[in-house]
Amino acid sequence: MSRLPYTKPAIRAACIEDNMERGLVLLSGGLDSTTVLYMARERGLTLFALSFNYGQRHSVELEKAQSLANRLCEKHFVLNLDPAIFKNTALVPGGPEVPMDAVSNSGIPVTYVPARNILFLAHALALAESYEISHVFLGVNALDYSGYPDCRPEFLEAFSRMANLGMKRGVEGKPIEIHAPLIRMSKAQIIQEGMRLGVDYRQTSSCYKPLSHGRPCGHCDSCLLRKKGFDDAGLTDPLVAP
Amino acid sequence: MSRLPYTKPAIRAACIEDNMERGLVLLSGGLDSTTVLYMARERGLTLFALSFNYGQRHSVELEKAQSLANRLCEKHFVLNLDPAIFKNTALVPGGPEVPMDAVSNSGIPVTYVPARNILFLAHALALAESYEISHVFLGVNALDYSGYPDCRPEFLEAFSRMANLGMKRGVEGKPIEIHAPLIRMSKAQIIQEGMRLGVDYRQTSSCYKPLSHGRPCGHCDSCLLRKKGFDDAGLTDPLVAP
Repeated sequence: MSRLPYTKPAIRAACIEDNMERGLVLLSGGLDSTTVLYMARERGLTLFALSFNYGQRHSVELEKAQSLANRLCEKHFVLNLDPAIFKNTALVPGGPEVPMDAVSNSGIPVTYVPARNILFLAHALALAESYEISHVFLGVNALDYSGYPDCRPEFLEAFSRMANLGMKRGVEGKPIEIHAPLIRMSKAQIIQEGMRLGVDYRQTSSCYKPLSHGRPCGHCDSCLLRKKGFDDAGLTDPLVAP
Repeated sequence: MSRLPYTKPAIRAACIEDNMERGLVLLSGGLDSTTVLYMARERGLTLFALSFNYGQRHSVELEKAQSLANRLCEKHFVLNLDPAIFKNTALVPGGPEVPMDAVSNSGIPVTYVPARNILFLAHALALAESYEISHVFLGVNALDYSGYPDCRPEFLEAFSRMANLGMKRGVEGKPIEIHAPLIRMSKAQIIQEGMRLGVDYRQTSSCYKPLSHGRPCGHCDSCLLRKKGFDDAGLTDPLVAP
């Protein structure tokens, strides 16, 4: 995986000279956040990545995130969250089962994790202020999504406002900007953008309940949404290609 | 410490019968959050406490919190935060020194911890949703305080709005209420309220840089504000009484 057509050495060099603009990407190792990492990279930012270990069933995504971050980022923060804080979610052992073969289209699905994006973003803010990072990126999107309230534009707007009221950076007129570049894109558009940027989607993991060796189950919400995205884009997912 | 004049057995019993109203108190073991714990208790809520270990210099406060929570709460959550996320703060080793003998009265002091209350409250939200808790309490106050942006009413209002937009509970019309009952009280008023409720302030710790055996230094911002509070209330702090 050395094909990186959109690496722009001139921009990277300028960035390092200025020693200025830093970006932190919430990186799960899934399709969306990996695409966002490449989008942030195209802006010529010095990149940092942030991943979480919270006892999720799909921890294979952490290995994917580590591999990506090693190649593209100055530093990869991997933080542990106590799994005891998340109850009644299908994404953590002890909760309900991950639903199979049906994408939820009403209400909030059982794969919702209590306050997850609030927690992830809160850690990102602390790191941003500690490491003089001005831009935080995350891969939420409001189309082709699973009904999570913490993936909606109105949530992100409220989060951003709250963050800059509660932080030294905001009070001092140097707000931390939160970017969700996928928010209004379809899964197919995200994949097309990723292909343009040279993302190798074999190196990502989307499945909520991977089989042995991290292979996707092909039946959970996330696998079904990923398949629909590749189908709509007229492409074959390299992760499941024969 | 068994003198608890404002324990109302009838209310406690009703609460347990209803099995309904639960409150989570962010408990540092300091003067303010301990007073808030007693205020929440007076409301007849079933109480949970939440404390954090983030490598703070003043970890003696955690012992105080543990002791209080054991007596008054159903459960005490103590969560670890990776100290690496907090840089350039006097409250974590490796940062600047804790200032002595002068209460900062301009700008944000070096004891500010990046995004601390945002992080603390984010964890509280996850626990609240996981454990069916409707009320979250924290002991911030905007008078006699140290200039922290995350202690201001406008921050808390924005946080509350964000939380209920991003969470299942909010979307389903069962918002989590965030209470900061001290927000507009002076330190003297807080102490008077605590005395009314039977708080034993010997069992609290406010110092940012305690001496051996957890004794307060008497010179940091927090010690000076505490002393002023007791002086203004016309009382003697039992923690430093001869």
